Amino acid sequence: MARESIFTLEATPIKFGPGSVEDAGWELQRLGVSRALLVTDPRIPHIDRVCASLGGAGIAVVIYDRSRVEPTLDSLQDAADFALQAHVDGFVSVGGGSSIDTAKVANLIVSHPAPVMDYVNAPVGGGVAVPGPLKPHLAIPTTCGTGSEATTVAVLDIPEKRVKTGISHRYLRPSQAIVDPSLATSLPPEVVASAGLDVICHAAESYLSLPYTERERPPSPDKRPPYQGANPVADVWSSKALEYGGRFLRRAVASGEDVEARGAMMLAASMAGVGFGSAGVHIPHACAYPIAGLKHAYTPPGYPDDHPFVPHGISVIVTAPAAFRFTYEADPERHEAAAALLGSHASGRDALPDVLSALMADLDVPTLSQLGYDQGDIPALVEGARAQARLLVGSPREVSDEDLASILRASL
Amino acid sequence: MARESIFTLEATPIKFGPGSVEDAGWELQRLGVSRALLVTDPRIPHIDRVCASLGGAGIAVVIYDRSRVEPTLDSLQDAADFALQAHVDGFVSVGGGSSIDTAKVANLIVSHPAPVMDYVNAPVGGGVAVPGPLKPHLAIPTTCGTGSEATTVAVLDIPEKRVKTGISHRYLRPSQAIVDPSLATSLPPEVVASAGLDVICHAAESYLSLPYTERERPPSPDKRPPYQGANPVADVWSSKALEYGGRFLRRAVASGEDVEARGAMMLAASMAGVGFGSAGVHIPHACAYPIAGLKHAYTPPGYPDDHPFVPHGISVIVTAPAAFRFTYEADPERHEAAAALLGSHASGRDALPDVLSALMADLDVPTLSQLGYDQGDIPALVEGARAQARLLVGSPREVSDEDLASILRASL
Repeated sequence: MARESIFTLEATPIKFGPGSVEDAGWELQRLGVSRALLVTDPRIPHIDRVCASLGGAGIAVVIYDRSRVEPTLDSLQDAADFALQAHVDGFVSVGGGSSIDTAKVANLIVSHPAPVMDYVNAPVGGGVAVPGPLKPHLAIPTTCGTGSEATTVAVLDIPEKRVKTGISHRYLRPSQAIVDPSLATSLPPEVVASAGLDVICHAAESYLSLPYTERERPPSPDKRPPYQGANPVADVWSSKALEYGGRFLRRAVASGEDVEARGAMMLAASMAGVGFGSAGVHIPHACAYPIAGLKHAYTPPGYPDDHPFVPHGISVIVTAPAAFRFTYEADPERHEAAAALLGSHASGRDALPDVLSALMADLDVPTLSQLGYDQGDIPALVEGARAQARLLVGSPREVSDEDLASILRASL
Repeated sequence: MARESIFTLEATPIKFGPGSVEDAGWELQRLGVSRALLVTDPRIPHIDRVCASLGGAGIAVVIYDRSRVEPTLDSLQDAADFALQAHVDGFVSVGGGSSIDTAKVANLIVSHPAPVMDYVNAPVGGGVAVPGPLKPHLAIPTTCGTGSEATTVAVLDIPEKRVKTGISHRYLRPSQAIVDPSLATSLPPEVVASAGLDVICHAAESYLSLPYTERERPPSPDKRPPYQGANPVADVWSSKALEYGGRFLRRAVASGEDVEARGAMMLAASMAGVGFGSAGVHIPHACAYPIAGLKHAYTPPGYPDDHPFVPHGISVIVTAPAAFRFTYEADPERHEAAAALLGSHASGRDALPDVLSALMADLDVPTLSQLGYDQGDIPALVEGARAQARLLVGSPREVSDEDLASILRASL
């Protein structure tokens, strides 16, 4: 096969710092917006600060506050229908990845009207390519988490098909992000922990993904996948996010008043978003889909909704130690470097799994068993992970169903 | 004073790799361009490859090949006038910083017609703010050099006023860069050396600039200067560029066939461009303006034009060791870290000056005396550097005229 020799990298412009949310109106005005749809959910604080800034800049605001944690096709279609009626010329999302992803999709439908399902990745959806640029979208994350402000993806759940999929195109990337640490002071520690563990997985999986030069060269530039494999520029972002995760996550969980630590984790989330938006994630994220989707037997502490679900970061991190023990032999040196960035002084196959396990123990992360799974569930989990073929191709070591089963069993 | 708490960072999307120039037509088409002005100069090779790619994508091309090394107001106005007559809807620049900067300005004038001088920074020019976004601009650097593909600045010389100034606005940033190492194989070693030393100065000055938190908070977001001071995200880019400079510059100079090294220096140039586009440069770049402008007594080897001039990278690096010896006490740890990134194992005030001096000696960099200056020229050089007040505010240690004189004297 002809090997790939090219990689691409694109980053959302970021404005970072305490108080930067006061610039929301100025940024939207600069982007040419006069009437904005503000996408959020009712539990997000600080909406009044955003609205005041928009009002001060003379921007009319329509609020959509029904964005759902773990968006579904129905919730996204609801937001899109609402946006079509609202006659806006721009979007501002305030919240976690769910609100930002919902705004991405609403913006897509307002800019290029069609049923949401047309744009969802094939084979689940129609796989229609996004026809052109969207309207301006200012993303204001309020968690220490997803990095959605920096990515080109909107993730959605299709509960009746028990599948998570998404819409992915560079035009979905927000026009500008405002990352203000003062918005994250009231997050419960468990929410910070889950989001931060997701950041660490984004960064570690990207850094350890199959190098772009080991992948097949696509027949034309538009066939180049969004997730291209590890490359020198994505590495820069992923490394820094790992370093921040190792240095700041425990502190960020421990206290909402630690603005430095929570700010560093918000910045790490954006950095990791840039990194995995170019390099991609693989085994832990592939396993996370069925872990979050198959059973709903776990009620996480600290989350306001008291219904059973697995927070995304938890669903990802539970298999990470076993996954990286498996991938170690693909590139021992890089695995040890990732461990060192997280603060480990060890070497060898166990260095990265051990530093992750220690962090997970400190943050009271449940095991896969504690999430309600047992040996009998392994085949269904393997099948669910295998369905994420577009992620698994990024694994630095080819992974069979038996390998996936071993990783999942070791994570029980 | 109220201290700044916010920084911003924005990067040109980059496509990197051998062969990526073949995607030029695809990228311009994606950006919606049907008729492009190709800005270059007659000595740039590989124009046929770019034209073939554009033609293959059905894009009409008009060529402007009079971009001048060290653009002047007249040369930029000439390009702008040409562009206005060409009725194009997009730009592609192929060459060094001069071609890319010329395309930025031609694009500005086509998008928002006015005399070039209206947009030039005050007090030299009218200081009119760029009114809105420009047309698409694909930048294809062919040197290992300026990083102009990643910045918001177009630099110009006004010989009759003996001043270098520019036009600076985020909308000047190219829409996309293609960085193809195969375009740089035929560069003379002296050109690679000068460009690479400029990259190292961009990175070192950015990394060692006054931290953004030590600067005054502007009264409104639009008063935030393009050069904001060192910040955690610019640091990531600058650090990597320093590391690449230390590892690859000597090899890139030694052989045009060393595609890995020349590619790494091209990538370092883009990375440093992102870094200094956010953090800014200071003493060495401020001194470089009069060093390049006051006398024309040096004919550099390796350059095709046999007229006397000081290559930009040479004009910058000659004062760097003395400048960093002066700024050392502002933050010894960061100065030592910069030295270590360049490959030094030393510590203390001399670590960074010494590692730079060793590199300069290996690359046969002339001294300030060899450029034609002596003790008697110091006052005029100080005056010329002082005129770059917008750069000198970025120095991590306040710098008086006497300090500038000492730095310049030590560089003779």
